[in-house]
Amino acid sequence: MKIAIYPGTFDPITNGHIDVLERALEIFDTVIVAIAVNSSKIPLFTKEERLDILKNVLKDYPKVIVDSFDTLLMDYAKQKNATAIIRGLRAVSDFEYEFQMALMNRNIYPSASTVFLMPHEKYSFLNSTLIREISRLGGDISQFVPEYVKLKLEEKFKKK
Amino acid sequence: MKIAIYPGTFDPITNGHIDVLERALEIFDTVIVAIAVNSSKIPLFTKEERLDILKNVLKDYPKVIVDSFDTLLMDYAKQKNATAIIRGLRAVSDFEYEFQMALMNRNIYPSASTVFLMPHEKYSFLNSTLIREISRLGGDISQFVPEYVKLKLEEKFKKK
Amino acid sequence: MKIAIYPGTFDPITNGHIDVLERALEIFDTVIVAIAVNSSKIPLFTKEERLDILKNVLKDYPKVIVDSFDTLLMDYAKQKNATAIIRGLRAVSDFEYEFQMALMNRNIYPSASTVFLMPHEKYSFLNSTLIREISRLGGDISQFVPEYVKLKLEEKFKKK
Amino acid sequence: MKIAIYPGTFDPITNGHIDVLERALEIFDTVIVAIAVNSSKIPLFTKEERLDILKNVLKDYPKVIVDSFDTLLMDYAKQKNATAIIRGLRAVSDFEYEFQMALMNRNIYPSASTVFLMPHEKYSFLNSTLIREISRLGGDISQFVPEYVKLKLEEKFKKK
Amino acid sequence: MKIAIYPGTFDPITNGHIDVLERALEIFDTVIVAIAVNSSKIPLFTKEERLDILKNVLKDYPKVIVDSFDTLLMDYAKQKNATAIIRGLRAVSDFEYEFQMALMNRNIYPSASTVFLMPHEKYSFLNSTLIREISRLGGDISQFVPEYVKLKLEEKFKKK
Amino acid sequence: MKIAIYPGTFDPITNGHIDVLERALEIFDTVIVAIAVNSSKIPLFTKEERLDILKNVLKDYPKVIVDSFDTLLMDYAKQKNATAIIRGLRAVSDFEYEFQMALMNRNIYPSASTVFLMPHEKYSFLNSTLIREISRLGGDISQFVPEYVKLKLEEKFKKK
Repeated sequence: MKIAIYPGTFDPITNGHIDVLERALEIFDTVIVAIAVNSSKIPLFTKEERLDILKNVLKDYPKVIVDSFDTLLMDYAKQKNATAIIRGLRAVSDFEYEFQMALMNRNIYPSASTVFLMPHEKYSFLNSTLIREISRLGGDISQFVPEYVKLKLEEKFKKK
Repeated sequence: MKIAIYPGTFDPITNGHIDVLERALEIFDTVIVAIAVNSSKIPLFTKEERLDILKNVLKDYPKVIVDSFDTLLMDYAKQKNATAIIRGLRAVSDFEYEFQMALMNRNIYPSASTVFLMPHEKYSFLNSTLIREISRLGGDISQFVPEYVKLKLEEKFKKK
Repeated sequence: MKIAIYPGTFDPITNGHIDVLERALEIFDTVIVAIAVNSSKIPLFTKEERLDILKNVLKDYPKVIVDSFDTLLMDYAKQKNATAIIRGLRAVSDFEYEFQMALMNRNIYPSASTVFLMPHEKYSFLNSTLIREISRLGGDISQFVPEYVKLKLEEKFKKK
Repeated sequence: MKIAIYPGTFDPITNGHIDVLERALEIFDTVIVAIAVNSSKIPLFTKEERLDILKNVLKDYPKVIVDSFDTLLMDYAKQKNATAIIRGLRAVSDFEYEFQMALMNRNIYPSASTVFLMPHEKYSFLNSTLIREISRLGGDISQFVPEYVKLKLEEKFKKK
Repeated sequence: MKIAIYPGTFDPITNGHIDVLERALEIFDTVIVAIAVNSSKIPLFTKEERLDILKNVLKDYPKVIVDSFDTLLMDYAKQKNATAIIRGLRAVSDFEYEFQMALMNRNIYPSASTVFLMPHEKYSFLNSTLIREISRLGGDISQFVPEYVKLKLEEKFKKK
Repeated sequence: MKIAIYPGTFDPITNGHIDVLERALEIFDTVIVAIAVNSSKIPLFTKEERLDILKNVLKDYPKVIVDSFDTLLMDYAKQKNATAIIRGLRAVSDFEYEFQMALMNRNIYPSASTVFLMPHEKYSFLNSTLIREISRLGGDISQFVPEYVKLKLEEKFKKK
């Protein structure tokens, strides 16, 4: 059985992430969508909120497992016996950083390849930072994120 | 069964291509290494020579099929019932062209995703054009290509 | 009156070009769509065929003038009394070349600025080379070019 | 009447910004130089200081209006009835970010195009972060910013 | 005598830095490895710790001088009578930033050129940020940094 | 004595090349400006014409030697006992190609490093292809090339 890990901050998940995930599901038997818990950046949504959002938004994908990890990605990949790491590529600026990470990861744990997939061009400009910013300023994000994410963002910015 | 197509000019195949191929074989059940016959560029090796080189160099990979095609890549992918198109990414300049091709191909035939894999960094500077040039000028290419490719290149440049 | 020149090979014009043109028409009073006749590259369509295609495809845009030139772009711009040169930007690889050209042109004739506009992301992967290649191999290009261009391409490749 | 918005942090404005602005003024009837008030980054100069600097430095350009906004850029553009958003492009790294923003903005409010202009190559390396850093370390910035900006920077770093 | 300055944060020094340094030593008579003390970023290692690490790791290079500076780089270069500034280039993202800095520096002090050298491709993905992150998460970094750096990193993360 | 090789097509040499050369002369004792004779591209100027132009234009630089070679660059470097290969970098697109070449060359002959230098930003858009094109179309190139090159270009295009 081929297992892939799709790691990310998912703060929050966008339609672009889901498009990449659906591509990955055509190739792998199981895809673990795994929140990378990063001690240095303070996210908008807590780990628990992001797990809740992912579980809600991805509940109709039987081959998807939602998880989080706070160790080295490649230690997590080894533990999960993963064949591949999934990364979405939208632009050249993504590419460089992803390239360095993938080469480094390959040196640490050669058994799992990094597999790059592209979201549909209609999501090529989407990223979570922009989504948070537009939502904070009251813009309409319904074409960019699932309904549940939109609600959670509105809730978050109302509270503040 | 998951089938992937690894299309290219392979004029000639390098150790970088083989490294990408080995990564793909860990993910897919069958990988078709398919020479794209392009009417506009005149290759160093004829289609027949390249098929011979690929068959010789890849004979110990049971899950690999060697083939060629002169149609639209996505028509070939549909005919072979492929899940994915494999492309190696070494550098930003690769990326842009590959990106455009992948988006175009996705519009033409959405059933097959383009999957990008990275060769080992020791092959990051390798490309067939450089190999042909170094061989033509009498340089040593034994660390960059399989032995059989080296012989065929030497033969080719001796004849000229 | 603000006049802009939109120079290009237009071999053939695509929906991406038209999208950029429509953006330019919102800013300028007149846009001259000007075929750059380049002695070194052999186009698929002759200058006369490209003028015919442009005139046909752009006949419903009253503020558009179709023309061709075989001089230095900036001499042509000066002669037409143009305020701006229009260029579409789709990708980083476009950008570098365009950047060099724009800086050079600015040194030659500072009165006309180069104005970069972006096509809709659904055309971000489109270019005339790909269109010609897909058409030559019998692929369906109806979502990428105007109907008249599609017919002319089919005619061209049938004749060959 | 064609109105364009030139949004930015302008912390502080440099000769590169002014060069782009002068290009824009040849195309548009009015250009609104608008400080984007961003809650997350702490600027060196307050909004009020930046408004003062812009008004002082741009007082001899009759077609320029100085303003600030803390809403979504495209809501501001709609409210001002703008035809275009002006952005300066110096380098590939600018390009990618600007590209994403422009595509996003086009999805939100299609009536205003993003228009990219290039500063003179002598300003191609200039950015406000470098200017602040050089000024803080006592370097000479008189060739890179207007006299008034130089004075305000010196004042700021003396106070600290 | 040709003196070059190799400025950087060196937080900590990696095998990639040392590879670039060795290249520089073949060209210049003396290379000053100089810690740029930057007031805005908080480093993992203090200036004193980094000076200690550099002196220890580079003690067998007789033509190397270890130093630090908190002024403008080009003022430091002038004071040291340097012919060149050494910078390592690994990737396009490095390149853009380095390019801007080098052009700016050339405007400030034309007597010292920026000289770009490339580390071996096996270090092409290495950077100090990744090294710190992997070490913090308990990963093995012995192939990427000198033994002394590895010990200092382990000490640092044990203390925390 | 430190010898560097500055290889190139020099078809023709521009002010940008000369600016890079002057930077190299501050670092190295001797710089060999070496025309790479490439069998695949047909140059505008013959090897003999280019040697004549280089000798004429560079006659006042006592530390410069003009030469040509038709072997592998690194075999030529070894034969000349060179410490370094000089390359000018203007833009990201240069960078990628140069990077691949430099890594390849380092694998073939590790004793000579590739040293990248940047021309002044006023030459950042200059390349020989643009110069030939502008000259062919009758544009003024006197600010971009030495007087002797301008004359030789005018002669060349008059003859045709």
